Amino acid sequence: MEMKNHRILLAARPVGMPRPSDWSYAQEEVRDPGDGEVLIQVLYISLDPAMRGWMSDRKSYVPPVAVGDVMRALGIGRVVASKHPKFAVGDHVSGMPGAQEYAISDGNGFFHVDPRAAPLPVHLSALGMPGMTAYFGLLDTGQPKPGETVVVSAAAGAVGAVAGQIAKIKNCRVVGIAGGEQKCRYIKGELGFDEAIDYRHEEIDQALRQKCPNGIDVYFDNVGGGILNAALTNINRGARIVICGAISQYNNTGPIEGPGNYLSLLVNRAAMKGMLVTDYFSRYPEARREIAGWMQEGRLKSREHIIDGLENFPEALAMLFKGENFGKLEIRVANE
Amino acid sequence: MEMKNHRILLAARPVGMPRPSDWSYAQEEVRDPGDGEVLIQVLYISLDPAMRGWMSDRKSYVPPVAVGDVMRALGIGRVVASKHPKFAVGDHVSGMPGAQEYAISDGNGFFHVDPRAAPLPVHLSALGMPGMTAYFGLLDTGQPKPGETVVVSAAAGAVGAVAGQIAKIKNCRVVGIAGGEQKCRYIKGELGFDEAIDYRHEEIDQALRQKCPNGIDVYFDNVGGGILNAALTNINRGARIVICGAISQYNNTGPIEGPGNYLSLLVNRAAMKGMLVTDYFSRYPEARREIAGWMQEGRLKSREHIIDGLENFPEALAMLFKGENFGKLEIRVANE
Repeated sequence: MEMKNHRILLAARPVGMPRPSDWSYAQEEVRDPGDGEVLIQVLYISLDPAMRGWMSDRKSYVPPVAVGDVMRALGIGRVVASKHPKFAVGDHVSGMPGAQEYAISDGNGFFHVDPRAAPLPVHLSALGMPGMTAYFGLLDTGQPKPGETVVVSAAAGAVGAVAGQIAKIKNCRVVGIAGGEQKCRYIKGELGFDEAIDYRHEEIDQALRQKCPNGIDVYFDNVGGGILNAALTNINRGARIVICGAISQYNNTGPIEGPGNYLSLLVNRAAMKGMLVTDYFSRYPEARREIAGWMQEGRLKSREHIIDGLENFPEALAMLFKGENFGKLEIRVANE
Repeated sequence: MEMKNHRILLAARPVGMPRPSDWSYAQEEVRDPGDGEVLIQVLYISLDPAMRGWMSDRKSYVPPVAVGDVMRALGIGRVVASKHPKFAVGDHVSGMPGAQEYAISDGNGFFHVDPRAAPLPVHLSALGMPGMTAYFGLLDTGQPKPGETVVVSAAAGAVGAVAGQIAKIKNCRVVGIAGGEQKCRYIKGELGFDEAIDYRHEEIDQALRQKCPNGIDVYFDNVGGGILNAALTNINRGARIVICGAISQYNNTGPIEGPGNYLSLLVNRAAMKGMLVTDYFSRYPEARREIAGWMQEGRLKSREHIIDGLENFPEALAMLFKGENFGKLEIRVANE
């Protein structure tokens, strides 16, 4: 039986916000896996801010996606053919299959996920890379202590929501910054944040002063730009700023906006530290176990925003950069 | 006998670079010290970049100097009258006497210096606050390891020169950034830096790439602006950036230029940390002892740039911000 693999290829390096013309939707025959290979039918792919970096021809922690290649993407799939000792037909696996319907892999970077532990999309969300980022970024880089004030930006997003909830579990006072009333209601009402700031409708510096009366001890930054700058003016002595991302800056055509208030680091003997989740790969199982436990106890919630159909990839990615998703953005590539 | 105390008062809050009209040169009678007080004749005062911050009405680590008050300044003097049990006439003391000829103090913040250990101006230089800043900023905040590449800006300045020399003593490869050929010759030829970059005549990003072929592990920043930004693009994984000052930005009338390349912290899992020397006050004796030892062994040199006459304070301070001094800038207020 012949099977077609539809794929999203990077057609051009985007300038600023990626446009539909930066992508092409192609198809190819699915080949049989060779010795040591596994054929995976992709069920869900993850849409992440980091994708914008992968499209740019700039020195970074991984090489860029080549023009003409399938777009790099995390995802979850089911093994449909295998000549690999570790993977059997029917297994559910997570890894980096790319934005396509079928992936052939030597197994490198793929690991088993248990669909009974949580619905599959959650394995790309609180139990996936965003959850790992939140866990290690907050606990290892941010080092929050009980009673401290933790501020999280993009707080309704996949990483921010988990970071904020873990900070609550660790007995911190947690203030989330999100865009729009609905997201603010969600983080405060459903996720248990102490306060929410709507950056679209509130003056951020003033709101931070008001809602962090004891100052900021840990700022978990996913957005950069003016929000990072405002947070810097409100940090306490010895504060830690976790640089996890800068979604407000990824589509800039001009230079990235640096934090003009960075001298607050000096005045407050504070640290701004970058983190990359892949450094913690060997500790993912430990984090996954702990987050899954919190979910079972009802102390941590995961929310996903699922778009149907791989062909909608360009529009879905644009939603991400406009902040129009509400929960971890994923594409359902095929029905489970 | 009546004695006059000439003093430099802050006449107005400067906008941008301080101007002569921001100062007034006043005089008053010297009064006798009361019980528990000491009268100090000021011999040298220290001119420091931090002074610019003290003149601004901005939240910082110390309150600003009030308009009409004597300008805050570190200095060294001789006790000329004392009703304080710890200080006797003839003692040499260091502390914060202010920009004036005589200071009355309750002794708070003053400590004895030994003029036989080093010439008095050195006690405001390598053995004073700049030396302490270099020592703790480099060793405690920067944490250099043998064989690592350490880059220092304002490397011919009072802090930078000591930081670079200590990095050499700790077996690092040291690259200094300074303004002009003379200063570059000095740090490479006399202080033993491995390389020097003349930021006035070299393209800084390219020069850093060329002179740090193994990348930057520790960047000790005294200047901010474009040099900090260029350093960020050349850091290694796990690099540490010590934010010690930002002299290029202190006289900005507009907003401070933030480091647009700060996302390099993320890519490289690096940290940017602020430090304030006063946090280490209790450990000054230890640092002073070690630096004095290195000086005696000929492994560390201190250079001072002495201007005569307190009345020249405004012009001397302007020199500092234009980078026209060569060595620790001090004013000789009275002959020893």
